[in-house]
Parts: sequence; structure tokens; C-alpha cells
Amino acid sequence: MADSRYSDASATPYEAVGWRDGALWVLDQTLLPTTLEYRRIDGLDDACEAIRSLRVRGAPAIGIAAAYALAAVAQRDRSTSARGVRAAVAEAAERLAATRPTAVNLRWAVARVAGAIAGCDGAAPARAAALDEARRIHDEQRVADRAMADAGSSLLPSGATVLTHCNTGPLATGGLGTALGVVIEAHRRGRIADVLVDETRPRLQGARLTSWELIQHGVPHHVIADSAAAPLIAAGRVDTALVGADRIAANGDTANKVGTYALAIACRRHQTPFYVVAPLSTVDLATADGDDIPVEESDEAEVLTLGGAPIAPPGARAFNPAFDVTPAELISAIVTEAGVLRPPYAAALRDAASTASGTL
Amino acid sequence: MADSRYSDASATPYEAVGWRDGALWVLDQTLLPTTLEYRRIDGLDDACEAIRSLRVRGAPAIGIAAAYALAAVAQRDRSTSARGVRAAVAEAAERLAATRPTAVNLRWAVARVAGAIAGCDGAAPARAAALDEARRIHDEQRVADRAMADAGSSLLPSGATVLTHCNTGPLATGGLGTALGVVIEAHRRGRIADVLVDETRPRLQGARLTSWELIQHGVPHHVIADSAAAPLIAAGRVDTALVGADRIAANGDTANKVGTYALAIACRRHQTPFYVVAPLSTVDLATADGDDIPVEESDEAEVLTLGGAPIAPPGARAFNPAFDVTPAELISAIVTEAGVLRPPYAAALRDAASTASGTL
Repeated sequence: MADSRYSDASATPYEAVGWRDGALWVLDQTLLPTTLEYRRIDGLDDACEAIRSLRVRGAPAIGIAAAYALAAVAQRDRSTSARGVRAAVAEAAERLAATRPTAVNLRWAVARVAGAIAGCDGAAPARAAALDEARRIHDEQRVADRAMADAGSSLLPSGATVLTHCNTGPLATGGLGTALGVVIEAHRRGRIADVLVDETRPRLQGARLTSWELIQHGVPHHVIADSAAAPLIAAGRVDTALVGADRIAANGDTANKVGTYALAIACRRHQTPFYVVAPLSTVDLATADGDDIPVEESDEAEVLTLGGAPIAPPGARAFNPAFDVTPAELISAIVTEAGVLRPPYAAALRDAASTASGTL
Repeated sequence: MADSRYSDASATPYEAVGWRDGALWVLDQTLLPTTLEYRRIDGLDDACEAIRSLRVRGAPAIGIAAAYALAAVAQRDRSTSARGVRAAVAEAAERLAATRPTAVNLRWAVARVAGAIAGCDGAAPARAAALDEARRIHDEQRVADRAMADAGSSLLPSGATVLTHCNTGPLATGGLGTALGVVIEAHRRGRIADVLVDETRPRLQGARLTSWELIQHGVPHHVIADSAAAPLIAAGRVDTALVGADRIAANGDTANKVGTYALAIACRRHQTPFYVVAPLSTVDLATADGDDIPVEESDEAEVLTLGGAPIAPPGARAFNPAFDVTPAELISAIVTEAGVLRPPYAAALRDAASTASGTL
């Protein structure tokens, strides 16, 4: 179903999320790496399901998908006034925001679309403004990803072996990616010797998605069990760790896929640089620190089964926190589209956010 | 196939390894938790395969299996002299020892059987001595496990939530277990609120085996992704971490299933006690420190597939270190059958080994 209108050929031969033929489309990430299939998302229920079930995932990509979903709601709404469209969008925005509590981009994106139609006069201009804003969010993400890739890749030594967690490539952002965008760009510049890919239990985003993306981009890599990262770091086999973020608090504490914290601790112990790569839309200045970030608990079946088949005995229970919080003190730098931020992060994040306030 | 002659009813309703009807039998751990099936091991090739493919696993259980396998070799040997039996056993011992380079119990056990027949006069006494020594090794393990369970469980607070990695229960030792033996005994004493079980990628010994054993013993528990341990420790939800060992060097550095090191780092950061529970047969005073412990690299297919089905895309590669080494400084105590050893470990291990020299 992919066609040239759909893909951003300059970045990648596939795209996580987009708008085509008057609808939101997503590349169904639950089917990768086995099947490459785009899925048309019809209606709000379908959009909420697609986000909740991780057909589209990655904080920035979720934000873009939600923005397009709101544009679709606006298009379908039968109101004859801007007020009616606004009411429909506001209700949909609330439902979309509730699908994934940890990622802040989702709330930020739906707030932007709602804001864009706030001053519209008439239903048709409101519908147009909603779609324009969703497209603008997507375009800005592509630009931000490019800026992060440039800034981040210049941090890597030549012949680098980098380690990454979860999936932060084009699939996660709708652009070039965050942490994996840095890797792809650094590879283009000839600076990557190897990439160690945490498989990222329980959903295996590393083994399933990151490995698939690196193959598409021709980047050499090895998948590892998440807990193999620490001894490989201890053995000096990792130059740099690069991860994304689901929410960065005002003080720099960062929520990201579970396993990020253990990786950050191991990097600190062995003086290995640990970089977070994330757009400023991931920064939430209204969240003071990590303690204030809500961490989603996912279905225990993700731990107890794999591909539908049980891996634990009948009667076994599981805990399944989806994210963890890495304290700012363990983060060597935060790479954003506004450049490389260094501690102390409170001031650096505030400054970057205010400079970029055109888009925030 | 299990019958009452086979099981050690006082400890557990199943047994990992034993001798019955003139042969070594193992509970095939590759089939758990789905199927409980004992497997008769006929001949040396079969024994090497059973150890290499983890049908029998856990450092102490491997040692016992190898000892019985040597007894079987001695029984079947057609020599008419003790010298002939010794030669057959020596050749078999070498092959068995090569199946798993990291675990030191394996080498220790085959050396004991070889030593036991060194002074025998005549083929029949040599055959009898080999089997007697194998049975003695097994019996001593049961006694050691009981002593470790007593010593270890007294370290736990009442209402404890303990976290454990890999499998260290009856399946791993042929007795009550090491770290999990402590848990089972502490549960019997009413001291366990919950057990967090690292699933232990890539072979999932925690999800498949430890959860199954805890269900058999009625111990409440939750399986977690390995990388969820760090945030749970950070949140104060873990009182103590308990792990086993595949080899303990003279200075206390400890090789154990990959993931142990990451766990130890997280425990240190949050001042959570981290205990190694292992019999003195796991201590190798001839290995100076962790750098001298060979770490097995397992098949990359363990990371790239699950239950035979691929979880990574075609063309993906993996690194798969089977073990890692936790430096002595991160270990709060080493629980052995000679009691609870505290740092500095070099002296404590030397003293314990010499006191126990009857069995070492």
C-alpha cells in the first residue's frame, strides 16, 4: 500500500505515520519485522486502539498520529460552526490523551491542534486549520529529527560502537528518529563500527523494530539481551549509549522505556557517556521532576506470553512497568533540535524551550 | 516416570537429576513448564548433549549429572582391570568438563569421581567406587543446600520481598537449591511476602523454571522483565536480592547467569543487600579473580528466536554472553554451607574451604 506520495524519500523508504486520501495511515508496528503493512485508521475508536495497542508508537509518532486523528475528527464532524468542530475536537483530544499517560508529546500535540482552531471563524476554516496544524507538527518533527541527527552524530567518536535501547528510529517519530536518527546519520558519515541493540523486553522493540530499521539503512549491528549490556559496557565494548525519551521533566529527569535506568546506572559505573536524544516537545516544564511522571503499568500478559504462547507456567503473575525514570545526574547530555544541552539541565531546558517557543 | 524411589520427598516433589535402574536420569528442563518428563541418559554422548543443551542445568546439578555419567561410563566399561576403568573414566571426564567451561562444579565433580577410583584394585571395586562417589556428591549437595537454606533465610527480614535471577531451586542443584532454596525455606518460616522473579533472558529460566518451582512450593511471586528490576529496587520494593553462582574466584568475584551484574549494580546504588548463595564446590581458589573466569558465549539463535520462531528480522546478528562477572565489592555476603561469609572474601573463602576440606 505504500506509494511515493506517502513516504519521505529523503529520509527513509518507509514511514510510521502519515495523512493520505483524507485519512490517518500508520505502518502497523505490531506486525514487524514479519510483515510490512500500512493500515488506514478510520474514526476515533480506531485511532485510540492503534495507539493503545502500539500499532503506532514512539512518543513523537504518537503525537503526530493523534494530531492527524484530530484532523480526521474535524473533517468528519457535521457541525456547521467552528464552535461545533471545536467541541468535537476537544472531546476527541481528551480520549486520545488518555491512551498513553507517560508520553507527553501526545498531550502536547492534541493541545496544539485544539489551539490552532481556537480562533477560527466557521466550520470549514476550523477543519482546514486542524489538518494544517497536524501537518505542521509532522513537518516540524522531520526538521527537528534532522537537527538532532546532526548535533548528536558530532558527539560520537570515529569508529564508534554505540548501544541503544527500545526503538527510536523513523518508526518512532515519523521523521529520521531521535537516538536512532543520530545512529543512522553517524553511519552515513562513516563513524559507526557497530550498534548494540537491546532487545527491549517485554515488547522486543529493539529486536523487532530497531534491528529491522538498521537493516533497511544498512547499519551493522548486534541484538543483545537487555541484561547483557552491563557486562559489555564493563568490558569496554561500548563507546556511547543513546536513548530516546517519553517525557523529560523540568530538572532533566527522563522517563523512557523500562530498562533505560539500568543502562544509565551501568554507563555511570564505567564512565560511558549516556545521551538522551529527544525533541523539545518531549520536555514538560510543568513536571518538576521524575517523581511527578506517571509510569504506565502494562498488561502482565506481555511478560507471561510471547506471540500468544505462554512462557511462564499457568497461574504465574507478573509486574510490567512500561517505563522507568532515569535521574538527570546520570545523563551526560540531552540532544535536542536546539543543540546539545549539558547539566545543569533546569536552566538549559528552560532556555531551550523559551528559544524554541515558536514551536512550543 | 517419576516414582517414589526417585524423588527426595523431604525436599521437593520432583528431582532434577538422579540414578535409577543403573542409569543417570534427568528431568528435562527444556520442556518445562509445559511438560514434566524424566529422561534416561544412555551413554556419554547423550550425557554431554543433555548438559550442553541445558536439559540438566545449574552448576551443582551439572556436577551431579556428570558424576553419575562417569559412574555409568565405569559400569559399562568392559575392562578387566581398575586401570582400564580409570582410563575410560579419565577420557569421559575430559569430554564432560568441556561441555560447560564457566561452571566449576562440573570439573570439581568429575575430578572427585576420578580421584575416588584412583586407588582401587580391580575393575569391580573401581566401578562401585565411581557410583559411590557420585551418590556421595549428590547427598552432600542435599546437606549443603539445607545448611545454606538455614543460614540464608535467617538473613531475611520478616515479610520480605526478595528478588532473584535465573533458576537456583531444586532444579539447579538436585537438592533444595541455593538462592531459591533460601526462598523456599524462608517461605516455610512465614517470612516471604513476595518474590520478584527476573525472567532471565535469553533462556527464560526465571519465567519457565523458577516460577514453576515457586508454584510447586506455594510461594507467592511475580515474574518481571530483567530490566524492570532496577526501577523496582529504586522504588524501595525489594528488600534483598538473592542469586546463585557458577564460579566464585578466590577474591570473591562471582560468575553467574548474564544479568547478575546489572542487578548487583542496581542493588549497590540503592543500598539493597545483594547475596550470593552457593556451595563451596562453586568456589575455585585456583581462579584468582573474575578476569580469569572464562565466560561462555552461547548460540546467537537464543536471542534471535523464541521457541523456534524468529523475533528479529532475517539477517540480524546477536551477541549472547551466557554469564557475567560481579566484582566481590558489590556482594554483601556469600552464603555457603559453612555459613555466611562477609568481606574480605579472600580470607573468608580460604578459611571456609580449608574447614570443609573433607569435601573439597
